[in-house]
Amino acid sequence: MITSTQNPQIKYLQQLQKKRSLRKKDQVFIVEGIKMVCEIPRQLCQKLYVSQSFYDQKENQALLEEHFLECEREVLADHVFLACAQTQTPQGAMAVVSQQKYPQEQFTQGSFYLILDDIQDPGNLGTIVRTAEAAGVDGIILSPDTVDIYNPKVVRSTMGAIFRVPFLYADDLCQWIELQKQAGLHILAATLENSMDYTQYDYSEPVSIVIGNEANGVRSKTLSCCHRAISIPMKGSVESLNAAIATAILSFEVNRQRRNG
Amino acid sequence: MITSTQNPQIKYLQQLQKKRSLRKKDQVFIVEGIKMVCEIPRQLCQKLYVSQSFYDQKENQALLEEHFLECEREVLADHVFLACAQTQTPQGAMAVVSQQKYPQEQFTQGSFYLILDDIQDPGNLGTIVRTAEAAGVDGIILSPDTVDIYNPKVVRSTMGAIFRVPFLYADDLCQWIELQKQAGLHILAATLENSMDYTQYDYSEPVSIVIGNEANGVRSKTLSCCHRAISIPMKGSVESLNAAIATAILSFEVNRQRRNG
Repeated sequence: MITSTQNPQIKYLQQLQKKRSLRKKDQVFIVEGIKMVCEIPRQLCQKLYVSQSFYDQKENQALLEEHFLECEREVLADHVFLACAQTQTPQGAMAVVSQQKYPQEQFTQGSFYLILDDIQDPGNLGTIVRTAEAAGVDGIILSPDTVDIYNPKVVRSTMGAIFRVPFLYADDLCQWIELQKQAGLHILAATLENSMDYTQYDYSEPVSIVIGNEANGVRSKTLSCCHRAISIPMKGSVESLNAAIATAILSFEVNRQRRNG
Repeated sequence: MITSTQNPQIKYLQQLQKKRSLRKKDQVFIVEGIKMVCEIPRQLCQKLYVSQSFYDQKENQALLEEHFLECEREVLADHVFLACAQTQTPQGAMAVVSQQKYPQEQFTQGSFYLILDDIQDPGNLGTIVRTAEAAGVDGIILSPDTVDIYNPKVVRSTMGAIFRVPFLYADDLCQWIELQKQAGLHILAATLENSMDYTQYDYSEPVSIVIGNEANGVRSKTLSCCHRAISIPMKGSVESLNAAIATAILSFEVNRQRRNG
């Protein structure tokens, strides 16, 4: 059991929580909370950390045997666990998890993708990933300046969907859009100017929907690579919808049309 | 200018930020941030507080003359302003605002309402109010245990929609549902069990949609007062959608059907 917050493993966990650069260098990230931890694909779990009071409960030991038999484990004194946790009421379980790599062809051969152009809010990105799974999105392509999907707040708000929705950070979004176009995908930017009502578009063919930054929308450079602009008609004095809300409305219209034929 | 954090007005502002009971007793709430402050309906603004560095900028004085000519004003030393602000990078303007009362008939005579049964997350409630305005919702009825709409986090995430969407805390949700039924509204609960695909329902008649608690959904007592249950078909292993996301998908389907006839 680790009883000191000065232990190098503890220092490492704290750094992983904070630093995108370290997560990228070591190709790992942290997952917190027993529900999310149990959703980690077994081959990705590098090391499991549990608090002493978590470990002392018999039902938790059974849970660990069932889910993490082959995963290296470490018990932390409660105050040490607290010093690494990001959540305010930590549930006593966290894990260091390998980042997953998806083959590039997974981002051209499907029938429905999201492309995120500089989404900055961690809660928005997490909610978009969760919503994308529910909408059956085949993958998400993220611009290089989009918030880190391995940021602890993003991971948490995906509710486990981060393990199930393929995603990829593109060095150049327009290059990826070109690849998708060549594969027969129709690229639709969600933007207000010169756009058509999203319910009037026919989504029966494969499509990618581009969602822009919370304050500035889709960049004009990205927009110039897209086939078309679509928008959600709004009432009242609202200037825009939240990015995750807009993604949901558009994605479930794709689903509605495809389901109802 | 107020230069001490011990000033009674400052103590009062701090208490208003924290305490639902005080906000309720005095029938006021706090609005922070210059953009939101400029959206306050003039007759509701009781007192405006600005930081000294905000006040020292000429363009801000012009803004105050234009928007808040008749509103009582107070300048706070920057450190005093910081001590009352909830946001991490406050923009130097906040106001004490009267709570607005909407007549009861506004919640029966429209064609589209939301009913919120114990929504707990402030960000969710704020996003629901913002989305409701964009969807042209006529009003929102909240269960008594729903998070306080005047909570600073809720106010902020409404992005100003709190001033434009009528809302009402119901002592008894089922009584209100009965009143709406008598007025000819169809009451639809968003829930997975025994429900129909939300895209198969015909929303041409007046409807209210009931959204439940983030973890537990619509209470069975509330459910028993509703006409019907509707749900959003989901793919993947997602257990549920975020409450604000579900509200958006359902609300914009109502709009789509009514717009496209």
